[in-house]
Formats: sequence, C-alpha cells, structure tokens
Amino acid sequence: MASKPSIPKGTRDFSPTEVAKRQYIIQIIKSNFEKFGFQPIETPSFENSETLMGKYGEEGDRLIFKILNSGDYLAKANATHLENKDSTKLTPSISEKALRYDLTVPFARYVVQHQNEIEFPFKRYQIQPVWRADRPQKGRFREFFQCDADVVGSKSLWQEVELVQLYDTVFSALGLNGVTIKINNRKILSGIAEVIGASDKLIDFTVALDKLDKIGEDGVKKEMMEKGISEKAIEKVQPLFNFTGTISEKISQLSVLLAESSEGMKGVEELRFICDNVMKLGLNTSILDLDVTLARGLNYYTGAIFEVAPPKSVAMGSIGGGGRYDDLTGIFGLKNMSGVGISFGLDRIYLVIEELNLFPETVTATSKALFINYGDTEAFYGLQAIQKLRASGIKVELYPDNAKVAKQFQHADKRGIPFAVIVGEQEMDSNSFSLKNLVTGEQVLLDFGGLKNALS
Amino acid sequence: MASKPSIPKGTRDFSPTEVAKRQYIIQIIKSNFEKFGFQPIETPSFENSETLMGKYGEEGDRLIFKILNSGDYLAKANATHLENKDSTKLTPSISEKALRYDLTVPFARYVVQHQNEIEFPFKRYQIQPVWRADRPQKGRFREFFQCDADVVGSKSLWQEVELVQLYDTVFSALGLNGVTIKINNRKILSGIAEVIGASDKLIDFTVALDKLDKIGEDGVKKEMMEKGISEKAIEKVQPLFNFTGTISEKISQLSVLLAESSEGMKGVEELRFICDNVMKLGLNTSILDLDVTLARGLNYYTGAIFEVAPPKSVAMGSIGGGGRYDDLTGIFGLKNMSGVGISFGLDRIYLVIEELNLFPETVTATSKALFINYGDTEAFYGLQAIQKLRASGIKVELYPDNAKVAKQFQHADKRGIPFAVIVGEQEMDSNSFSLKNLVTGEQVLLDFGGLKNALS
Repeated sequence: MASKPSIPKGTRDFSPTEVAKRQYIIQIIKSNFEKFGFQPIETPSFENSETLMGKYGEEGDRLIFKILNSGDYLAKANATHLENKDSTKLTPSISEKALRYDLTVPFARYVVQHQNEIEFPFKRYQIQPVWRADRPQKGRFREFFQCDADVVGSKSLWQEVELVQLYDTVFSALGLNGVTIKINNRKILSGIAEVIGASDKLIDFTVALDKLDKIGEDGVKKEMMEKGISEKAIEKVQPLFNFTGTISEKISQLSVLLAESSEGMKGVEELRFICDNVMKLGLNTSILDLDVTLARGLNYYTGAIFEVAPPKSVAMGSIGGGGRYDDLTGIFGLKNMSGVGISFGLDRIYLVIEELNLFPETVTATSKALFINYGDTEAFYGLQAIQKLRASGIKVELYPDNAKVAKQFQHADKRGIPFAVIVGEQEMDSNSFSLKNLVTGEQVLLDFGGLKNALS
Repeated sequence: MASKPSIPKGTRDFSPTEVAKRQYIIQIIKSNFEKFGFQPIETPSFENSETLMGKYGEEGDRLIFKILNSGDYLAKANATHLENKDSTKLTPSISEKALRYDLTVPFARYVVQHQNEIEFPFKRYQIQPVWRADRPQKGRFREFFQCDADVVGSKSLWQEVELVQLYDTVFSALGLNGVTIKINNRKILSGIAEVIGASDKLIDFTVALDKLDKIGEDGVKKEMMEKGISEKAIEKVQPLFNFTGTISEKISQLSVLLAESSEGMKGVEELRFICDNVMKLGLNTSILDLDVTLARGLNYYTGAIFEVAPPKSVAMGSIGGGGRYDDLTGIFGLKNMSGVGISFGLDRIYLVIEELNLFPETVTATSKALFINYGDTEAFYGLQAIQKLRASGIKVELYPDNAKVAKQFQHADKRGIPFAVIVGEQEMDSNSFSLKNLVTGEQVLLDFGGLKNALS
C-alpha cells in the first residue's frame, strides 16, 4: 500500500487526549446512572437482521449497516432478485446480521429474551456505539456512542421526576450550568390535535408554532393555513400564541384549552404531577420548561417527552432527549411493558464542554515524571524506584533509550509530563534522585521518600 | 415477531452482574496501563477493507466480517464475478468496509496516518471489541474484547522488562497469583532452525518438543524423525531434551547450543538482558519461565515472544500473549518502526477469576438502600432524602410504584439491595427514617444525619 492509509468517512480515530475527555464525560454519566439505581447491560454490536429491520421506518431500514454473510454467500442468494439486480430485495438472502442502529430496540429485545431472569421494574443503562449509514456532516457521524438510561415495567410518574433530576445532576456535575430541560407530553399533543380537529395536521401545526419567535404570530398563522389548518381551528388554540409565564401558569392555560379532550386533560395531569414535584424538590442548575411544540419521535412516545438544550451561550442542537413509550417490548411479543428513558448525546456534550472550555486540566492523564535514561546502569537504578512509585499508584515512566538528553527532555515536554528525574553517578552514590520541575526549571536532590512525596 | 427473539451465534448479552465483573477486570488493566505510561487511543469499529484484507493470511481474510455497501450496491457489482457466482471475488465490488479483526493492524494504520502528530516512542493502549467469523466454541466468540498495550518507535529491551512487570502487576492486582509468564525469542528459534539445518521444519520441531512431558524423549524424537528431521540434527540439540534448571542455567545451555549461530546468540543476549533485569527487579507473584517451544505467530514476531499461563490449579489456555515485531508499520509504508506489545485475554481471565472465586463481592454495584413507596406523600418525603444522599455519592433508589409492601421488599431482596428505608406517618411527623437491615432484619429509627452515616 503506497498511499497513506485512511478511515471510512463518518468514522473517527480518537487520540489519547480525546479518549481522556470522552472518558471524563462517560464516567460522570455512568456514576450518576448508578447513583440513581440504574444497572449496566451490554448487547452485541450486531443483531439478527429481523430484530432491527422494520423497527425504524423505511428510512431507518436504509441506514442500517448490513453484514455480508460469511463464506459462499452467493450460493444461497435469491436467484430472482439477483437476476433483477434488485439490491434491496436481495439483501435478506445474503445478509443475516446488521449493526446496532440504536440502543432502544436491542434493549427491548434483551428484556423479552431475558424476561425470566429480570427483576422488574428494571432500571438499565447502556453506553455503547451505534452505527448509521447517514450522510456525515458536522456533529453527525456513522459511528457514535449513545448513553441511555431506561426503566421498564412501571408506569409510575416518579420515574419522570427522577429522570429530570438525573439530567440536572449530570449536567451540573459536568459544569454545564443553565441547560434547559424541555418537557411535553404526547397526550397534550393529542389533545391539541383533537381541539384543532385534525390529527393528521399535528406535525404541521407544531412545526409552524415552533417558528413563533422567528416569524411572529401572523407568519405562523399564515403557514398553518397554507398547510390546510382552518382559521376556526387556529382560533381555538389562540392561547398557544401567547404561551408564557411560569410552568404552573402554562399548565393552567392548557387545562382550560384542552378541557374538552379527555386525553389532553390526562396529559395536563401528568405534566402537573411531574413539574410540581420537580419544582418542589428543586434543581441544581438546570431550567425546567414546558414546550408544547416538542414532538420528537411522535409515533414513538406515548407520555412524557424530554429534550435538553445546551446553555444559552452555545449555539447547538439538543444534547439529550427521551420520553415514555407505553409499549416498549410489544414489537417482540411481550405486552404491557411501559418504559421511560433518557439519552445523553455524547458528541454534542463534548463539543459544548470544549466550546465553554470546561474540561478540567487534569483530565488528560499523562505520566507525572519521566526518568531520563543515561545508560543501562542508571536505567536499572531508576526502574527500581519506578517500580515502587507505581506500586504506590504514581504514574511514572523511563525513557526507553539512552538517547541524547536534550531529546529526552523534549519528549517530556511534548508529552506534557511535568517532571524529569535525573539519575547519574552522583545520585546513585548518594542513594538519591534529582527531580527537575519542567515548568519552573527548579531542580532538587531528594531521597526516595522525598521523591515519592513530591510526585504524590 | 411471534417467536422469542435471539442474538447471532457467537455473540453475547451481558447482564448487570457480568458487565460489573468485566468492568472490574478492565479497570484494573486500564489503571495499570496508565501507571506504566501507556495512553489510550480508539479506532473505528470498521476500517476500509484494503486496510484489513491480506494482513492476516488467507484464513484471516475469510474470517473478517464484511459490511455490505449501502444503497443500490448491485449497480456497482462486478458483472463477471456476479455471473460466475464467485462470492470471494465479488466481495470487493459490493463491500468497501470490514469490521476490525484485531487491534494491532488498526494501531499500525493509526500510527502511519497520524505519524506527524505522534510523539515517539509512542506507548498506547487500546481496549475495544474485535470481530471474527470463527466457529464459536467454549471460550471463543465472534465478538470479544482485546486489551492491548504496545510501544512503537524504540528498540530498547527495557520495554520487554517493563512489559513482564506489567503482566505481573496486573495479574497480582487481580489476585491471580502464580501465573507463569513464558518468554522466548524468535532469534532463538531461528538459531535452533539453523542448528538442525532445517528452517522449514521449525514448527514441526517445536510442536514435537512441546510434547516432551506427555510422550517422553523417545516419543518426541520419533515424531521429529517422522516429520523428516534427521537423527543427526536431533543429536545436535540434545540438550533441549533435558532443558531444566533456573532461567540463567537454561540461558547458559542455549549459549553453548547456539554458539555457531550468530542470530541465535543475539537471541541469547536479548533473553539474558530481559530475564536478568526482571529477576533482579523482582516479580510480585508471577513466575518467569523460559520456554523454547513458545512460537506463537511465528511469522509475525522478530524478537521477544511472551505468553501467560494461568495459575496451575486452573486448566485453561493462555490468558495473555505478545512480543516484538521489528516492522510494525511497514505494511502501511512507514519503515523502521519497531514495536513491542502485550495483550490480555479478557474472556479467559474472567473465567479463571470466576473459577477461583476471586471476584470481590463488592464488584456488583447495586443500590445501598431501597425506599419503600407507601404513596405519593411518603414518596415525596423519601425523594427529598434520596436527593441529598445521592448528592453525597450514595446509591439509593425509590420503589417507583405504591405496590404491596411484601412485593417491594422482595424486589430489594432479588436485587441484592442490603437496606430498606421505611417512611410512614410516624417517621414524617418526627422528621426521621426507619432503616431496616434486610440481612439481619434489625430496624432502627434515625434522623437524616444518622441515615446518611448508616448508608455511607
């Protein structure tokens, strides 16, 4: 291979610094998942195709990475589809496995498959990569991590309360103060559809309403009417065009607006329970907001819908989302399993923390000291100390070669190693070590105890 | 889908307990990698096919999982191969990407691609899954983790010394006392081949010699002769049939035996340097042993060869291996980059620790206490305490539903949660909590401070 090697588009190599920063975020998410009682599971990177296909719509099916069968796969290929060169129809006969597209469907499959071993309600978290054959663009990759926490087997709204707290706890721990946790409810949306008398126009309606800040009330109404929503229907939901105030005030307005829709009123009650309790318990640094235009994955969620916006100083899409789905495992034949969960968008959270310069300096874990190598005798003397320092949990290393001293110091510098340990005849004779601070240039002669203290 | 869902053969779901145990091992490996100055990188799960194909021999090519191109892949399929139904030849025209087969080739690719950003010598570690379309069997999976530490860009034998120490440190930290770290050197093997005058018979020779314990000297010699190794050649290496004593004694014997082979003598010198220094520095609990039959990946390694056998009480294959390869990155066009590395076999290490019952009981991180749910008022009171306990890093949870109390206690029991917190009218009135030890049955009434202390 003559040309420089490369990686597939939409994938990434992570350098030591990047891995350390990603691990820092993951570690905070993970420890808080566990503090809230969630337990980790892991599922295989690839599933049987029938587990995944048909679960994400036609577009999703197209974006799933399929794995070619091993061996002489053409021997079992469907002859007709092969002859017709019909790629889509041929695929099932030459590919039985596919890469995980998200963590929710594998989780549902896991719950059904292991239902007899699981103690419900089951609070699980899962932090693993997923793959999508999407067109790569800024912040969108073909391989990326999802960090999900879900509870399955309980309809209690206390879960929703705790999930809002979990978002707040994690983002506060990451130093991301002032994120907005938006909440809505599928039943509110159903109620609005009922009131405007047009369930099929619901998405058009919310998309238009979401533009209120940008194009104003008249602009929104114009767009709605263009989409075929009647003026009379729009009149009925007039309060939504001036939907401000505290969450309690918003909920009161909704309860008037949706009074005729029993589904809508159920949504109001759920929202009230969740928001009241969250507010009474208090959030650390996040803002809870009711957003009636929030409709992500409309066909998917049946109750609460969540989405998290980054602090207002950063222009970036949502950094988390989730909601309740009353029939999580029905697709695999296990009925009446309500689930509710949230997801953290690792890549975007990374970008936001980077932009706000909030990664602690200590995240990138490099060695504390480099022992300069002056030859085998000195190296051996150094390794005796290195061995003891490591046993005390101190990260130190020996420059492997007896290279020019300047080169060795340069190595420490480029690696960001803060100290050098120098061992020559003098040090060996006096059973000591010269420790040089590479930032200040200061050098001191120490016995082993002193060295250990200085590097601890 | 009517039938219960399943996962592809050779893959695994990991339950919370299994994930926790795996994480326990990974965490110990990882922290010691870092203590020894290794830094983490991560590479994509799939690589361009040309990066992987041809790097693992014909058998390897067959075992690599290929990813079908997205969209209308048949449009670009090679017409001739399609017509001939030649699966192997067709593959490159319908699949451009393939799943990672090991971590070494992607590492070599990474080093070449990022050579201008890397500060050499580069000590990297990588803990990620790899995939092989192998026939699954006990302890062999199609998806499994590799844990590799390699240094690239230095020929110093101090690396080998430190890698032996790293093995010893990790296995000692895991409680796996008494593993045998076997060492050999490719140049010793070349020397033996030279002495027996038959390089092409080297593998037959080592395979036969390895059976000495089982079939005795006569049996081994018989097998060697059957393989076409001359009696005269066998006579020349007679000392290998009684190859005992300390490592120093074994090295002395080798230096006599290989005196005429300059390559062999170079191997003797390397072995002597590594073993002398390892012995002088001392190992914690592992045994270093020189094994001249050790030949793993013969075509791959050029210097030291390592393999780790589990403690003698466990019947299991090697739990680690590695060695030096003088031309790691040559396959991608970057010459003169010597590399040396070791790998930990996570799945087998897991099985050995399980068999020896060495997983600490605290590994499985479940909640410390379950707050029993007697209704919304009590739940809210409980959540106020839960919030503060979590802020102090204590794992606690609320049973989400106001279910029968017996069922809630059963849930704590099945989950292995050691305490229940009971909050009724009496507790709320007195601003306190009843804490029940679910092992002893003992119950005490505590204020919040007392509760926090008891659960810390």
